[in-house]
Amino acid sequence: MRLAVIPGDGIGPEVVTEALKVLGEVAPNAETTNYDLGAARWHSTGELLPESVLGELRQHDAILLGAVGDPTVPSGILERGLLLRLRFELDHHVNLRPARLYPGVRGPLADTAEIDMVVVREGTEGPYAGNGGLLRKDTEHEIATEVSVNTAFGIRRVVSDAFDRAEQRPRKHLTLLHKTNVLEHAGSLWSRVVEEVSLEHPDVTVAYSHVDAATIHLVTDPGRFDVIVTDNLFGDIITDLAAAVTGGIGLAASGNLDITRRNPSMFEPVHGSAPDIAGQALADPTAAVLSVALLLDHLGQKEAARRIEASVAFDLATRDQANPGSTHAIGDRLAALVSSNTRTA
Amino acid sequence: MRLAVIPGDGIGPEVVTEALKVLGEVAPNAETTNYDLGAARWHSTGELLPESVLGELRQHDAILLGAVGDPTVPSGILERGLLLRLRFELDHHVNLRPARLYPGVRGPLADTAEIDMVVVREGTEGPYAGNGGLLRKDTEHEIATEVSVNTAFGIRRVVSDAFDRAEQRPRKHLTLLHKTNVLEHAGSLWSRVVEEVSLEHPDVTVAYSHVDAATIHLVTDPGRFDVIVTDNLFGDIITDLAAAVTGGIGLAASGNLDITRRNPSMFEPVHGSAPDIAGQALADPTAAVLSVALLLDHLGQKEAARRIEASVAFDLATRDQANPGSTHAIGDRLAALVSSNTRTA
Ligand SMILES: CC(C)[C@H](C(=O)O)[C@@H](O)C(=O)O
Ligand SMILES: CC(C)[C@H](C(=O)O)[C@@H](O)C(=O)O
Repeated sequence: MRLAVIPGDGIGPEVVTEALKVLGEVAPNAETTNYDLGAARWHSTGELLPESVLGELRQHDAILLGAVGDPTVPSGILERGLLLRLRFELDHHVNLRPARLYPGVRGPLADTAEIDMVVVREGTEGPYAGNGGLLRKDTEHEIATEVSVNTAFGIRRVVSDAFDRAEQRPRKHLTLLHKTNVLEHAGSLWSRVVEEVSLEHPDVTVAYSHVDAATIHLVTDPGRFDVIVTDNLFGDIITDLAAAVTGGIGLAASGNLDITRRNPSMFEPVHGSAPDIAGQALADPTAAVLSVALLLDHLGQKEAARRIEASVAFDLATRDQANPGSTHAIGDRLAALVSSNTRTA
Repeated sequence: MRLAVIPGDGIGPEVVTEALKVLGEVAPNAETTNYDLGAARWHSTGELLPESVLGELRQHDAILLGAVGDPTVPSGILERGLLLRLRFELDHHVNLRPARLYPGVRGPLADTAEIDMVVVREGTEGPYAGNGGLLRKDTEHEIATEVSVNTAFGIRRVVSDAFDRAEQRPRKHLTLLHKTNVLEHAGSLWSRVVEEVSLEHPDVTVAYSHVDAATIHLVTDPGRFDVIVTDNLFGDIITDLAAAVTGGIGLAASGNLDITRRNPSMFEPVHGSAPDIAGQALADPTAAVLSVALLLDHLGQKEAARRIEASVAFDLATRDQANPGSTHAIGDRLAALVSSNTRTA
């Protein structure tokens, strides 16, 4: 397994170190190459993602990314020039974000119903297309536009993937999130594609929810969701909320998948670089570790993936929630659990 | 006071009846005219908002709306053709949505911190501009676009209003919600306008939050927000979540304001027509009653507004939360409280 590693900024390198520690327990022969993309490189060279690096990244089986973003870099530069550029160049059309309330974890909700959903967020179009502009800048007549671009091709492949996943899950339920009553055109296309693809999956039940109403459901009745499929921006918003209600972004993993496997998929915690706590060993590496599990699962190493997930579940059920330990301590614990799970498996 | 009343669909007429009952206690001379806009009229005449009706509505001091939307009407027809058309035609640029956790109300969050915020949502542009289309419909090459249109003019007036409101509040704090790191053009314009207007309000502290991160804050630390200003779509999403964490949309009021007062402003509960519970006297009319308070406040009848709010606060603190009573019972209770508050004031 050839793995490209982009530790990135802030707590990125810290959580990646622990994630690789855990990976080492299940895949001791994984070959990793570090890429120093992020704020430091931009400051010293002005480079965000050179073509040559992109070419090298393509030669790997998968990419593990820590986090991108730094207060010393103007907002958006690293996000658009590095993170989103990777997702778009590598055609990461399925942005996979499971959200599960693990036993022992106390989320912010008073009612601790079971939560086990997976959000399939479109990753390569919609409002993230970067399509728009400014007219009459710095005058009182300035206009700014942002164009959400949605294609039948782009929607169909992510909707198909979402149905495939729903098919594999006990509840076989899929919810389309959108705002069809206002965003008439995109809403119409999304709805029609979901309807079409649903014909190929007669055993999957389908629901629709407006994105605004879905935020209510997520805090009052999150158990209703199984698989959610939605566009890039709604997916961005809803996965942060889903992470929050399942115990916080310290636990939320994600995969940016090219399901055609023409390009390496990229795995990253949902959290950002958290510059306020960087360098203090305060970051919880669990999300990065769970991202490694998604990576292994994607590469077909299902058993290794399950082992990591089981170890995380055990640790979450037994750790002191208020004081889970330092970044390293958590990483050590998870690595030890995976190691003993590996020996007894 | 000349009031146009649009009871609308589903539970709309039920909650409006109670809201008018309460209004009668503080403004017995208010003249109300009913307009039968909504699903029934569309079914029988095909009309959504005839020009002549729009002209009549303009002759009023304010509009009270119940709810719009019905399962027998294709999604979007009533929303865009009636509700959004009213907001746009009457230039309701400030969509005002307070969210307060009243004493005695149990929201879905385990930690019952104090929540008292007001969201100033832009109401006449952004992704709601209705600008977009379909290309190559019903082919595999179909494309759907949605254009978010943001103007310096449109943003400045709502940002100014938000700062004015922050100025009046004890904490004098304003948060801009956007997604500036991805929606570069609109984000740049919103950020620059907030920066400019903030110079005229040196005593208001200003914060920025990405909309995705804001959903996390709303469930983990909602007390941090005071005034939020944001665009039409982010405001739509965030106000449903804000309503949910403060006890549900049964309590959330809103005002669609033309702050220039060239057109009548329109007041409505944030909740929809809830067809599943319509006609059963199950709807909580509190949001509609609080919308009447916003209406009175807007028309300068501050004391009457305060009286209604105090009555609602008292009822919420003392009502049986699990069993607050029928729509009529709640309306009767609130009317009686307002009446006795009026007599003792
Ligand atoms: C950093 C930002 C560009 C990114 C996004 O909006 O997709 C992040 O919020 C995420 O969800 O991964
Ligand atoms: C019904 C719908 C068009 C409306 C909106 O999106 O503004 C509603 O959700 C609201 O928030 O008032």
